[in-house]
Amino acid sequence: MSDERHDWPVVESRTEYETGWYTGGYDLVEQPDGSRKRYYWAELPAAAVVVPVTDDTVVMVEQYRPAIGEHCLELPAGIVEDGESFTTAGARELREETGFDPSGTALLETFWTATGVLRHKRGIVFAEGLEPVEPSYDDNEFLEVRPVPIEEALERARESPANDATIEGLLLAKEEGVL
Amino acid sequence: MSDERHDWPVVESRTEYETGWYTGGYDLVEQPDGSRKRYYWAELPAAAVVVPVTDDTVVMVEQYRPAIGEHCLELPAGIVEDGESFTTAGARELREETGFDPSGTALLETFWTATGVLRHKRGIVFAEGLEPVEPSYDDNEFLEVRPVPIEEALERARESPANDATIEGLLLAKEEGVL
Repeated sequence: MSDERHDWPVVESRTEYETGWYTGGYDLVEQPDGSRKRYYWAELPAAAVVVPVTDDTVVMVEQYRPAIGEHCLELPAGIVEDGESFTTAGARELREETGFDPSGTALLETFWTATGVLRHKRGIVFAEGLEPVEPSYDDNEFLEVRPVPIEEALERARESPANDATIEGLLLAKEEGVL
Repeated sequence: MSDERHDWPVVESRTEYETGWYTGGYDLVEQPDGSRKRYYWAELPAAAVVVPVTDDTVVMVEQYRPAIGEHCLELPAGIVEDGESFTTAGARELREETGFDPSGTALLETFWTATGVLRHKRGIVFAEGLEPVEPSYDDNEFLEVRPVPIEEALERARESPANDATIEGLLLAKEEGVL
């Protein structure tokens, strides 16, 4: 990264929309040509997406996603709470959503999601050595546990309504040789 | 999909925040237990993400992403305009951002992005047979073309600040055997 690169100074940053799910607003920034422009963003906490493997299956969940109005087959996932690491959050979400406690977790990758508009990080967590415990659903979670054979998981994930986190998690786990 | 499944009726849908980038609001829905809850969403047009391959390189772009305050190495991408298909939009964005016109495109996958909060579809478009034409940057695009050797592309994409669309596009192209 070169030193002479424009540093896009923020002239003004404003929060305009606050919900329990995300915060919306804009930054007014100075562009390389000297002009100023508002860049809008939606900010939400980081999320952990879990690739939980037991025997020959990936433990997936089926749930309704009100934002898109679709029932989705997904990897377990959830928001990283204050003070948690991605792996801690992933293990907690896995336990809460599926009733499996992992004996081992590994952070495969972290990245920004939808960089054109979101301020939102995602971490992909591999989980293995699953032991059954009692699930403890949040009061807003209505989901069904769906173990899917490993060799079918990606194909199922790519069927409509497909979602980015599940496809990406499975592909990264496959790329890393753990799936 | 079972007939007895709850259909999550929408009691009320409200738009509360409108920007040139996305629209924010909520749906009040009836949950399976009969309770009602507001689910917030941010809606934005579909985006095409292009995996452009020429000789032994993937044509990537480096640009500043004001939403996250980072310079990112990314696949070319942009919003699908009215009436465009994912492949048409992808070819146009590729031409505008890099100055390459593809002779062939293929839609590898479409999926929802960040289903917990976004109403936003993304399509991954493979592009080959690239011929140089004059680039025509939008007035808000300040980017540099970065051809990256195919064998290094995924590793470079996974370096911080990594972003989801680029990792996912490269992994899908690799999975399909075209990269």
